[in-house]
Amino acid sequence: MQKQEQKENVSSFPLGVRGVTVLAPATIANLVCGFDVLGMALHDPYDAMQLTLSEKPGIRIIHNDTYNLPTTPEQNVAGVSLLELMKELPDNYGFDLIIDKHIKPGSGLGSSAASAAGVVVAANHLLNNIFSKEDLVRFAMAGEKLASGVKHADNISPGIYGGVTLIRSIFPLDVVSVNAPPMYVAVVHPQIEVKTSDAREILRKEVLLKDAIKQWGNIAGLVAGFMKGDYGLISRSLEDVIIEPVRSMLIPGFDEVKTKSVYAGALGGGISGSGPSIFMLCEKENTALKVEKIMKDVYDNTGLKYHTYVTTINNEGIKLI
Amino acid sequence: MQKQEQKENVSSFPLGVRGVTVLAPATIANLVCGFDVLGMALHDPYDAMQLTLSEKPGIRIIHNDTYNLPTTPEQNVAGVSLLELMKELPDNYGFDLIIDKHIKPGSGLGSSAASAAGVVVAANHLLNNIFSKEDLVRFAMAGEKLASGVKHADNISPGIYGGVTLIRSIFPLDVVSVNAPPMYVAVVHPQIEVKTSDAREILRKEVLLKDAIKQWGNIAGLVAGFMKGDYGLISRSLEDVIIEPVRSMLIPGFDEVKTKSVYAGALGGGISGSGPSIFMLCEKENTALKVEKIMKDVYDNTGLKYHTYVTTINNEGIKLI
Repeated sequence: MQKQEQKENVSSFPLGVRGVTVLAPATIANLVCGFDVLGMALHDPYDAMQLTLSEKPGIRIIHNDTYNLPTTPEQNVAGVSLLELMKELPDNYGFDLIIDKHIKPGSGLGSSAASAAGVVVAANHLLNNIFSKEDLVRFAMAGEKLASGVKHADNISPGIYGGVTLIRSIFPLDVVSVNAPPMYVAVVHPQIEVKTSDAREILRKEVLLKDAIKQWGNIAGLVAGFMKGDYGLISRSLEDVIIEPVRSMLIPGFDEVKTKSVYAGALGGGISGSGPSIFMLCEKENTALKVEKIMKDVYDNTGLKYHTYVTTINNEGIKLI
Repeated sequence: MQKQEQKENVSSFPLGVRGVTVLAPATIANLVCGFDVLGMALHDPYDAMQLTLSEKPGIRIIHNDTYNLPTTPEQNVAGVSLLELMKELPDNYGFDLIIDKHIKPGSGLGSSAASAAGVVVAANHLLNNIFSKEDLVRFAMAGEKLASGVKHADNISPGIYGGVTLIRSIFPLDVVSVNAPPMYVAVVHPQIEVKTSDAREILRKEVLLKDAIKQWGNIAGLVAGFMKGDYGLISRSLEDVIIEPVRSMLIPGFDEVKTKSVYAGALGGGISGSGPSIFMLCEKENTALKVEKIMKDVYDNTGLKYHTYVTTINNEGIKLI
């Protein structure tokens, strides 16, 4: 985390003003075989958000980035999440929010979840932690609903709880922290647009029972592998027979990146969230660096613009600074 | 296990004769949300099997029970499993097998798996453990194939590995041991016939993706709950939205047993394997005894014959005595 602190210009607040800055990290939803239920927080990339209590009721939002996101609270992912939280406060509360977004919207790296979760964690800190983590997930789901039309928590929860989380159930909400051994994560974000709603639309509503059995064998293996720290089992369990075969067609270069990465020693990986980002889990840093090189080579050849990251699992989640 | 040793008449062998007696326990396949992949070994009931190396090549089988099972090796579940193992031995090996079966065939408590797994564990002991546990699972699957028409390992593996096992994959075979906290298990076997093949036949070949997602959230929660020793999470995860709603219709009294057991404090439970036995997991022994009373009351009212057991998880699996 030191690297991040050095990179950020940590804001300081005038005497008597109550404010806080949080770093809200990217997250990988699904984790190959855990569609809609598993998620993992990363160290990089991350958004920085500065939230200040104000005597003026309501929410004012400033975006210090170039993504041209709406700043009307009701149309802003962080805004609606904060509004959801404020329903449980007296009417006269006010907040000023400044967002430095580094997680590109539409990357599949939980950009909207970082805004949604980051702001409610920041607000809770300013309110002396009156809300539970579960409450915060509930508030932030309003942001996800605005972003994608569906309340989901697989990106929000790893931000709020840190590490790897399982959403066993969303109604009622049941978030389970799953310990995982240290891993390096190589990520490539090819700059193509995959809308979450489109990525959901192309999925079949029914699946073969035999495929579902394979999938729940794999997710059970992945959770056991994480908790045992058994890299071999993690690797064998990183298989998705239901979603990836369909969605990967939307991502040029996917098969080549995956095949070459596994050949180079990655444990496995797949589509991050609904894509287009691709992630690969690795036991060793030098493997992750090799995988990053493979990702760069593949996308240099396609001519597509891209970003890569080599990072680690973020067990702390959203960080107050 | 002391209780068991007292109950058994342990055979002793004449000097120079190499023989072994094993206790092969009942097993619960599926464990509610882990259809075809999870299984658990129990202490009660169990079969006793005595296997002796013979100078006469081939297999002779005696059944010391009243189930009228075939004793021709090629038609006997233990016989075909032992034949499968013998394919990897020189031709002149011979075995005499005596089976005291206490796990009723067709009970859904892994009767065929106990025969199949018990005999190969016994043979491996007589052969100075030349085979791995995975090899033994492979041999015993020949017995399951004879019994049900399908190679499956969810009853065999907990017998051979002990405790709770996950069959992450069957081809290639990948068996994972899952630690579970101490639990009491109340079981009722109502004496009705549910053929495994019928129980499989009535399942739909396709399932809704949203149901599959719920199921893999639950199996991931159950594995995490076992490994964390989190009884609350185990309880919440013991939910099956795919198989139980269909198969439970074949078992009169199922809903009443389940509802009343959970009300009495059971963590949860469901159909053992393909039924008709029903099992309930409990944190405390006195809850399991209450649940047993409920099971008895329900089946006394129906007029169906039944057996009940209150037992615990068998972490050792098949026991050499």
